Amino acid sequence: MRTRAAVALEAGKPLEIMEVNLEGPKAGEVLIEVKATGLCHTDEFTRSGADPEGLFPSILGHEGAGVVLEVGEGVTTLKPGDHVIPLYTPECRECPSCLSGKTNLCTAIRNTQGQGLMPDGTTRFSMLDGTPIYHYMGCSTFANHTVMPEIALAKVRDDAPFDKICYIGCGVTTGIGAVINTAGVEIGSTAAVFGLGGIGLNVIQGLRMAGADMIIGVDLNDDKAEMAKKFGMTHFVNPSKVENTVQEIVNLTKRGADQIGGVDYSFDATGNVKVMRDALECSHRGWGVSVIIGVAPAGAEISTRPFQLVTGRVWKGTAFGGAKGRTDVPKFVEWYMDGKIEIDSMITHKLKLEEINHGFDLMHEGKSIRAVVEF
Amino acid sequence: MRTRAAVALEAGKPLEIMEVNLEGPKAGEVLIEVKATGLCHTDEFTRSGADPEGLFPSILGHEGAGVVLEVGEGVTTLKPGDHVIPLYTPECRECPSCLSGKTNLCTAIRNTQGQGLMPDGTTRFSMLDGTPIYHYMGCSTFANHTVMPEIALAKVRDDAPFDKICYIGCGVTTGIGAVINTAGVEIGSTAAVFGLGGIGLNVIQGLRMAGADMIIGVDLNDDKAEMAKKFGMTHFVNPSKVENTVQEIVNLTKRGADQIGGVDYSFDATGNVKVMRDALECSHRGWGVSVIIGVAPAGAEISTRPFQLVTGRVWKGTAFGGAKGRTDVPKFVEWYMDGKIEIDSMITHKLKLEEINHGFDLMHEGKSIRAVVEF
Repeated sequence: MRTRAAVALEAGKPLEIMEVNLEGPKAGEVLIEVKATGLCHTDEFTRSGADPEGLFPSILGHEGAGVVLEVGEGVTTLKPGDHVIPLYTPECRECPSCLSGKTNLCTAIRNTQGQGLMPDGTTRFSMLDGTPIYHYMGCSTFANHTVMPEIALAKVRDDAPFDKICYIGCGVTTGIGAVINTAGVEIGSTAAVFGLGGIGLNVIQGLRMAGADMIIGVDLNDDKAEMAKKFGMTHFVNPSKVENTVQEIVNLTKRGADQIGGVDYSFDATGNVKVMRDALECSHRGWGVSVIIGVAPAGAEISTRPFQLVTGRVWKGTAFGGAKGRTDVPKFVEWYMDGKIEIDSMITHKLKLEEINHGFDLMHEGKSIRAVVEF
Repeated sequence: MRTRAAVALEAGKPLEIMEVNLEGPKAGEVLIEVKATGLCHTDEFTRSGADPEGLFPSILGHEGAGVVLEVGEGVTTLKPGDHVIPLYTPECRECPSCLSGKTNLCTAIRNTQGQGLMPDGTTRFSMLDGTPIYHYMGCSTFANHTVMPEIALAKVRDDAPFDKICYIGCGVTTGIGAVINTAGVEIGSTAAVFGLGGIGLNVIQGLRMAGADMIIGVDLNDDKAEMAKKFGMTHFVNPSKVENTVQEIVNLTKRGADQIGGVDYSFDATGNVKVMRDALECSHRGWGVSVIIGVAPAGAEISTRPFQLVTGRVWKGTAFGGAKGRTDVPKFVEWYMDGKIEIDSMITHKLKLEEINHGFDLMHEGKSIRAVVEF
């Protein structure tokens, strides 16, 4: 069949809207009609050429929602008409990682996915002249139709709006999951969130859901504070306006008998390795847990004195918020429909596929939290 | 009273054996007769002048065992004749850290202890000319008698030999505790231990106690392997004899369906920040936990790509093996007496106080695992 897609022909160039060929689903695969897709910083990281593992030509996009049109041989858990959210972190429930119960990082199709290929080592997309087009993060949601492995699709309820729940395919789950899966925040905790963009806001609402007492937002842009407050931020620190961000947070958290200070949990949602260090070091001696969410530039390294860890801080990271996609994503959709998770106000822009490059402009200008393309 | 001590008069100089003044215990304090004390690398770190926080003149030593001679006003949990192990990490059971249940890093007397002082801000030791002598790590076990806060003494059973259980005051508890308290190793785990000295051997026996399947020892010195095997090491890697230590460990741990490899738990017992990085990076994607035990040189920093954490590795550290001294140390002594913990073969040298500088020579020459001074 043919479908319409925004194709990344070369690193650093705008995406080009064009007709492309799409082969039907092979065994274990599913054809879906993409109804909506968010634009995430990770797409831009690859589009811009900053991603050293970026492949071209490719169809980017990994934050989508759609409907199953056709299933390949052997597919048993999905049927045409099912509503689904694509998962860049699949959940096969059979590999050593899935079976470990300790991680969401399913390895069933890791090698081919990293090479922009379907599990059989080929692509389903091609240019009209036959040139193969790489898949992206196993999803390629910047196309009206895409083919994905069954294990990389979460079946969700039929009445949830595509233009909102697509955000659960990455940002919402990453932010909230970092709090509830990776950090395991308890009621009454104190926390600091570095970076109040699309991920940071979701960390904040995750902290509110988890019952945190103090939720300190940190951002260089004062304008971000208002929105963050609506999501549950209780205190705001602008690093450009204080002498020492770490000390400021430590001072804010000295409470009652505890005159040591430091947050119980901290989250980096900036991708800046210096900020990651601050996030670790503002966490509490003895038990502070700091979670890295942001994607750092190629080659960048985090560092600290080992004493920070020896005195009880824990440094960890999260991918897709530690969520097991087929198990957890449908639950997040339920929570959204029940009003437990707020999404609507974060979808600041709706675009047509033809306007997708404008979406990246909005991202750079800091004007959007999430821009969503509707098909 | 007067007592005999090995005094560190100046950084980098041999200790001097001399008579010193010792004031009796003030309120909440206890006078103990030290019966035996181990020589630990941390003592040498300070003696040598490498410790930027080292204070002189001071009486070093923090790995002791002895008998209570006299208790100060208000002391209720100890009485003359009780056998005790000094704790450089006290356990007050009242401060926010103790009450948190999340850490062993009691903060009750942290400030004064760091300044070489008793909790009231003064020293009990002085030179015969009246010059105050600083306490060290709140213990100062390189003296035949010392005064310590009640909260920094673990009461242990009377029939345990001082010259063995003194090692529980630091090395044994640090190594085994890192496994059972900090890492929480489960039966069937795989593990790597970097550095097969006094701490590393105790990590290895902790892993054996915890039921680890594979215990990989890593050391530049092949001669260390034999002893480590006796404590439970199952595989040995000499970094000078393989191309890439991390890759070697990853390859060793590819088992059955798991072709990713990496250890479930790794431990640095070297204090070398490059080794700390290897320890992290040889741990398993998705769930590997790496624990820093070693004390790094002043100013040294650990670093890695944040991707290592984002893909599920956890970096943490341990002080005194995460043990709550008054609660856990008596238990470790029981385990030793029950034959569950091996200590005797690690006490390779017995010295008199006059020979203490020779003990540091043995340490430098790599000839001793633990040298113990008996009074």
